Amino acid sequence: MRPAPFIPVIPAGGAGTRLWPLSRRARPKFLLDPTGTGRSLLQGTVARLAPLADRPALVVTGAGHADAVREQLAGGAVGGADVQVLVEPTPRNSMPAIALAAAHAEREDPGAVIGSFAADHLIADETAFARAVTLARAAAEQGLLVTLGITPTHPATGFGYIERSGTERAGGAGAALQEGVLPVTRFVEKPERERAEQFLATGRFLWNAGMFVVRASVLLDELTARIPALGTGAREIAAAHGSAEEQAVLDRVWPTLTSIAIDHALAEPMAAEGRVAVVPADLGWDDVGDFASLAQQLRSAVGAGAVPAVGTAAGDGDVRVVGSAQVDAVSSRATVYGATDRHIALVGLDGISIVDTDDVLLVLADEQAQELTEIVARLEGQGLGHLR
Amino acid sequence: MRPAPFIPVIPAGGAGTRLWPLSRRARPKFLLDPTGTGRSLLQGTVARLAPLADRPALVVTGAGHADAVREQLAGGAVGGADVQVLVEPTPRNSMPAIALAAAHAEREDPGAVIGSFAADHLIADETAFARAVTLARAAAEQGLLVTLGITPTHPATGFGYIERSGTERAGGAGAALQEGVLPVTRFVEKPERERAEQFLATGRFLWNAGMFVVRASVLLDELTARIPALGTGAREIAAAHGSAEEQAVLDRVWPTLTSIAIDHALAEPMAAEGRVAVVPADLGWDDVGDFASLAQQLRSAVGAGAVPAVGTAAGDGDVRVVGSAQVDAVSSRATVYGATDRHIALVGLDGISIVDTDDVLLVLADEQAQELTEIVARLEGQGLGHLR
Repeated sequence: MRPAPFIPVIPAGGAGTRLWPLSRRARPKFLLDPTGTGRSLLQGTVARLAPLADRPALVVTGAGHADAVREQLAGGAVGGADVQVLVEPTPRNSMPAIALAAAHAEREDPGAVIGSFAADHLIADETAFARAVTLARAAAEQGLLVTLGITPTHPATGFGYIERSGTERAGGAGAALQEGVLPVTRFVEKPERERAEQFLATGRFLWNAGMFVVRASVLLDELTARIPALGTGAREIAAAHGSAEEQAVLDRVWPTLTSIAIDHALAEPMAAEGRVAVVPADLGWDDVGDFASLAQQLRSAVGAGAVPAVGTAAGDGDVRVVGSAQVDAVSSRATVYGATDRHIALVGLDGISIVDTDDVLLVLADEQAQELTEIVARLEGQGLGHLR
Repeated sequence: MRPAPFIPVIPAGGAGTRLWPLSRRARPKFLLDPTGTGRSLLQGTVARLAPLADRPALVVTGAGHADAVREQLAGGAVGGADVQVLVEPTPRNSMPAIALAAAHAEREDPGAVIGSFAADHLIADETAFARAVTLARAAAEQGLLVTLGITPTHPATGFGYIERSGTERAGGAGAALQEGVLPVTRFVEKPERERAEQFLATGRFLWNAGMFVVRASVLLDELTARIPALGTGAREIAAAHGSAEEQAVLDRVWPTLTSIAIDHALAEPMAAEGRVAVVPADLGWDDVGDFASLAQQLRSAVGAGAVPAVGTAAGDGDVRVVGSAQVDAVSSRATVYGATDRHIALVGLDGISIVDTDDVLLVLADEQAQELTEIVARLEGQGLGHLR
């Protein structure tokens, strides 16, 4: 049997207000290079998937960001990787975006396996990632919905969890799985702290990083069986691709697609039926979810691209600088994102992130990074919507 | 006997690098209004002394700051108070500056009593200050060098101390003193922490705020006896005042004056001879010595002139804003000095000061405010001398 071609799908959406003012409405997280690696998170995602792909990756993004996405990925800008940009007329959550890409993939090759990966995450261990995707592809060819589950390092309350079966070969789908692939019992939404600790204690829970590998036709058939308008609608749009009616069909059908996340639409119900598998993986994954996680990244190997602070005396502190900012520090552990040419001086800081832009200055304690959303939510009411 | 006229002397000098970048070489602390009262520390000092003065105050400042000083005090700008600005060709510590002023005062009235007070301190209780100065004047008319001693509130290591006699009427000068005036045993330089605690435990030590009240002729005669060139030199410069040779005499004599502090030149040796008295006073005094002390001021009644942060939700933090900055904060206790029109967002800060200027951004933990001097000292070496 000819191996099914693999087509990466990259949903590039999300407001990403937790990295404001680094990220803005018009410049979301996936377009940024927050760790100073020399390429944006989107470009990094494309580059990571290119060696695994049999066809150009399908990047699904909003109308407002399509030009910026095309510009960042133009002409194989990232390691010669070609991509196709699919434009969502309006944001309708992850399922319609992935279904649209699946329908395009299916149209290119009815046997295609797609792998959907967020455009704005970091993965330190690309070899482990490639290995996990290869395992997932094989299981997907068996007709399963396969997810990559991140080995948890702490009882995080900001991620959903995937529970795998206790014994490797028990249960329906489990019987025929390769080593390294396990049946999924259920998906669990973000837990409270205590529950997260219980999850870790069992050794059976993994973080849900929203990575799904599945045959395009399986995804669309399942969807058509469960939410008919979504499955048929996505296929209808893809069928019109390249025709004179393409835009008209998109504009007519897209608003009728149910706005729903892939977890609720497919992953949870299929897991209940024993038709989901997981590849547990230790990838050095990070969703760069807020400034605390970003600061941690910049202190790890992944953040090695970041420029060290100038003038920071040895042993005098631990300051990471992203951007052109000139920083001098005394007794400080801090992260500076500097986009202006001002001299930045730090004294006695411990666990502080600073974003210095032309119109906004943010000073934030990493420990309370989650509370930034309150500030961003208040902007409109303060007549400062233009700063979003 | 006609009461001796009182002439305030205000030495306006000092680099004040501990409030950088709020203060700069060209804009020292005394020209600033760091607590947002509506007038500079210098203007506040002039205004505080005006009701007590029988002649215009003598402001002694460096050549580089004379224009700015004159501008701030022009035409009785401060409550109609007239001042005379004396210009030091080069900085030579406090004794030559005060001696020069004393010689000018003596020339105006041989019986004049001068009171010398730093240009860059805050005093919350002006009534207590006026009362203390009045007591000091009376003692000064008796030929004593009189200092105002600040009742210490904690074992500070950043100030010198004054030890008063244990019993009010013991000792040489003590015998004839008014109630509220006490003989001084000795002056002590900035102590270590443990020693400062011992000082406080005795109840006999006061902070030395550099406030001296003395008959001008006594000061100059004492000086002439101890450091002849200084006493006679100051009188020679003052004698030439208003003449065609004024500038020539100043330029010739000034460089010959010994560069020495009044504490070493007069206060310490005269105390050893029992010829110094102190008026203990609880003035709400603050030398605004660094950002920690400034932050504390802004949280006290004196800082009431400061504009509260906009958008700071009730109970959500305690943010003080000096300047026009627009600040929004979550869970923060911080002080912001904002001179740009950028939006400033704070999250989770505790005891942080932020100075936002066009060319420098400072973020400092108040607890380590003293370490700012390291940053300022490094500027020249980094080719950033223009930011001093």
